[in-house]
Amino acid sequence: MADTLNHTERWSLLLVTGASLAVIANTFNGDGAPLVASLAFSTLAFSMTYAFVRWSGPAFVKAGLKGKDMSKVAPKEIPEGMGAVAASVYILALMAFIPFAFYKDIVAATSGGGNRDVVLTAHEIETGRFLHRFPHSKLSSYQSALNTLQATTILGMADDILDLRWRHKFFIPAVASLPLLIVYYVDFGVTSVVVPNFLVPYMPGNTQLINLGFLYYIYMSALSIFAPNSINILAGVNGLEVGQSLVVAGLLLINSSLYLVPFPGNPVLTNGYVDHPHPATDSHLLTLYVLLPFLAVSLALFMHNRYPARVFVGDTYCYVAGMTFAVVSITAHFSKTLLLLLIPQIVNFIYSTPQLFHLVPCPRHRLPKFNARTGLLGPSVTPWPPEKPPNKIQTTVFFALERFHLLQVTVDPQTNRITATSNLTIINLWLVWRGPMREDQLTRELLIMQTFCGLFGLFVRHTMALFIFSMDNRGKGGSQFPV
Amino acid sequence: MADTLNHTERWSLLLVTGASLAVIANTFNGDGAPLVASLAFSTLAFSMTYAFVRWSGPAFVKAGLKGKDMSKVAPKEIPEGMGAVAASVYILALMAFIPFAFYKDIVAATSGGGNRDVVLTAHEIETGRFLHRFPHSKLSSYQSALNTLQATTILGMADDILDLRWRHKFFIPAVASLPLLIVYYVDFGVTSVVVPNFLVPYMPGNTQLINLGFLYYIYMSALSIFAPNSINILAGVNGLEVGQSLVVAGLLLINSSLYLVPFPGNPVLTNGYVDHPHPATDSHLLTLYVLLPFLAVSLALFMHNRYPARVFVGDTYCYVAGMTFAVVSITAHFSKTLLLLLIPQIVNFIYSTPQLFHLVPCPRHRLPKFNARTGLLGPSVTPWPPEKPPNKIQTTVFFALERFHLLQVTVDPQTNRITATSNLTIINLWLVWRGPMREDQLTRELLIMQTFCGLFGLFVRHTMALFIFSMDNRGKGGSQFPV
Repeated sequence: MADTLNHTERWSLLLVTGASLAVIANTFNGDGAPLVASLAFSTLAFSMTYAFVRWSGPAFVKAGLKGKDMSKVAPKEIPEGMGAVAASVYILALMAFIPFAFYKDIVAATSGGGNRDVVLTAHEIETGRFLHRFPHSKLSSYQSALNTLQATTILGMADDILDLRWRHKFFIPAVASLPLLIVYYVDFGVTSVVVPNFLVPYMPGNTQLINLGFLYYIYMSALSIFAPNSINILAGVNGLEVGQSLVVAGLLLINSSLYLVPFPGNPVLTNGYVDHPHPATDSHLLTLYVLLPFLAVSLALFMHNRYPARVFVGDTYCYVAGMTFAVVSITAHFSKTLLLLLIPQIVNFIYSTPQLFHLVPCPRHRLPKFNARTGLLGPSVTPWPPEKPPNKIQTTVFFALERFHLLQVTVDPQTNRITATSNLTIINLWLVWRGPMREDQLTRELLIMQTFCGLFGLFVRHTMALFIFSMDNRGKGGSQFPV
Repeated sequence: MADTLNHTERWSLLLVTGASLAVIANTFNGDGAPLVASLAFSTLAFSMTYAFVRWSGPAFVKAGLKGKDMSKVAPKEIPEGMGAVAASVYILALMAFIPFAFYKDIVAATSGGGNRDVVLTAHEIETGRFLHRFPHSKLSSYQSALNTLQATTILGMADDILDLRWRHKFFIPAVASLPLLIVYYVDFGVTSVVVPNFLVPYMPGNTQLINLGFLYYIYMSALSIFAPNSINILAGVNGLEVGQSLVVAGLLLINSSLYLVPFPGNPVLTNGYVDHPHPATDSHLLTLYVLLPFLAVSLALFMHNRYPARVFVGDTYCYVAGMTFAVVSITAHFSKTLLLLLIPQIVNFIYSTPQLFHLVPCPRHRLPKFNARTGLLGPSVTPWPPEKPPNKIQTTVFFALERFHLLQVTVDPQTNRITATSNLTIINLWLVWRGPMREDQLTRELLIMQTFCGLFGLFVRHTMALFIFSMDNRGKGGSQFPV
């Protein structure tokens, strides 16, 4: 591919960059306008990612970070691991945004407009002058989110370069999430979950809350291991990794907006939250600050990774995407909502387990098989050679799955033995259901499926949850709804 | 080299690891023992780095991260960029240490021993229960240090893999230092410097302090650009990058101990600081927490990088080392002391400027020249071909420098023209002064020089400073000594 920007691209990006910088400069007024600044930084991050991905392609190829796109008639080598560029720009944007996120607090903490006295007394130096006025816990949250994302980026880059083994990299996200969990422990420490209504009568003392205590931290660690890896294994088709991340990020933005935008009928509008902000306002604002630049760099990456891909995104992107979701869901207390949005990833993980745990042979790559004659993708298969056929249990399970249309099983009509089964990813399953199709069509259909699953999840979360739990935390008493 | 540990190494490391884990587990008592835990984590980090550097060598070579050691009779390819392993372990250690650093505060903030009530009131959830008891500003400092170091690691890895150009990477350390500067602004905001005694009479109003304001932040940014790069350019001899970092880190540990250890005659002991701790105690403790694991991973790396080198350290290590020094000196307010310890680096930078800014041609590598016949290193030179001789000014300066023994100039006796000048690094200058020597001898002498310069710097800082400034901040009124 050309590694330079064409005329239109160059001028569009320059225009967007200039506009962003102008907007950013203008947010240093009054209380500041952090959300506007965040939007402007995101636009800037989009431009930077778009240009850097294009420009750094040859350097990546030269460094050996390249791969062949096998699902094309004439496979050619394209840069691999370009998600590292997007992740780096994302982190730079999050860092540069810190003064803007806290501008109001900085102004409030100093005498008026950033001025302060020249000579400081001993007491002021010792205690830190603004300890009781500056929201250090908010800054801690932001910094811990940044730390977790940076650690994830380092892990991803190491994996992209060195091809780490599973047993080496599996637990590192848990360590990466440590800065986050510490702040969670110190600031919130809420480890109780709400008991569903229909179970309350059976609880000792009819309690509506169970305190999970230490188990809750295990749960959050598990979430930060699961989210990055689940996106990493729903992959292998042009644009799918970034596409699903864009969908999930978009749905999370909608979810947080439900707490922030007082549209008619929104429970946030009633119950007095017009006069004083909903208690979750700050954490959902933080969610926007973290998600907006992520969405921007992902979009720029998607424009290079969509069919026909000009770059591959690599592990770094998948890890950072998943960890971004884990980070916002933990700091803003909507980890269960996140799980509702990751239903396709969860199903894919469960469906994959027989191959991940080697109960069924797992080839190096399980991506769909490209048919060069038709130009279409079909499901890839695990071959069962005559000398190593599936055992009795496997055979029974395979035929049962086939009956429910959950597996494609090929049987040799002469020997009546299973010769191949489709690989266990929902991508292959989709192709089993819908028949062979072009790569871009496959990505599109999977992303539409992800969107509908997610919208359904949000619907369940904010309406049907009332049938199971006693309240939705946007409405009255929302502040007492702990998790 | 063998990429496995031999019998002695394996058992020593296992023993050390076991002992560290036992010590760490035992620090969860009473107020906790963060310094003991830090020592144990550092020992653990040493073992991990030692083993990981050994084990991951082949993976680095396979990924193309390798280099030839040219100063050997039979140059062979060894892994390059292994500092990334040390940096990653360092960051993991800093992260895992967070709960230990704040154990006392966590216990104090919860009801006794980490227990807390099951049902939380709305108010508690909204405000974060421990906001006024937990030292969030300390946690912010620690997290910002971690953020800055991680951003530096990412920059270093990108540079090791992609060979970034100077103009791309020069300002990134300044962005990496942003999380640190924000916390500095919010927590301390001390931007005044003390006026030397002999200048006070000439100051308006005889003031003893000048407020540098915004310039002070520029200064701190510049420090975080200078420190990493200055270590990166004093390099090219086996063990020198890590060796100088070990020396500087050791001297910084001594400096911080002067505030923490009440040995007889230490001003910290008098002036009532026995009853209540010196105001700088917390920041110097933080310095130890950051420096101890750094020293440990550096030592493990040094044992592989010293003559004859089995691995190269790469840019990542140099950047992280320099940034570690910048981070502790900014958070604990001893940036001027740091500059005293970096005198060889400063001299090397100034001496290098003519080549760095291309006033004098700069070859790709300026490392000393290996003489395969004698096995000794001599100064490397910039050749001046007859068709492109030095101009008049250059010639004058070269001969002037030669007169002061600051340059080796080779003159063609027939034409009386300069044919070569030694490259402008203090490593080459040292060889000009001392004559050719073996590589290990050169490293040893340079490190001894660095140690003596640093000890002299510390001596100046803590004794002679009294002749220039009105006080040393370890003694009476130390808390009023702002920077």
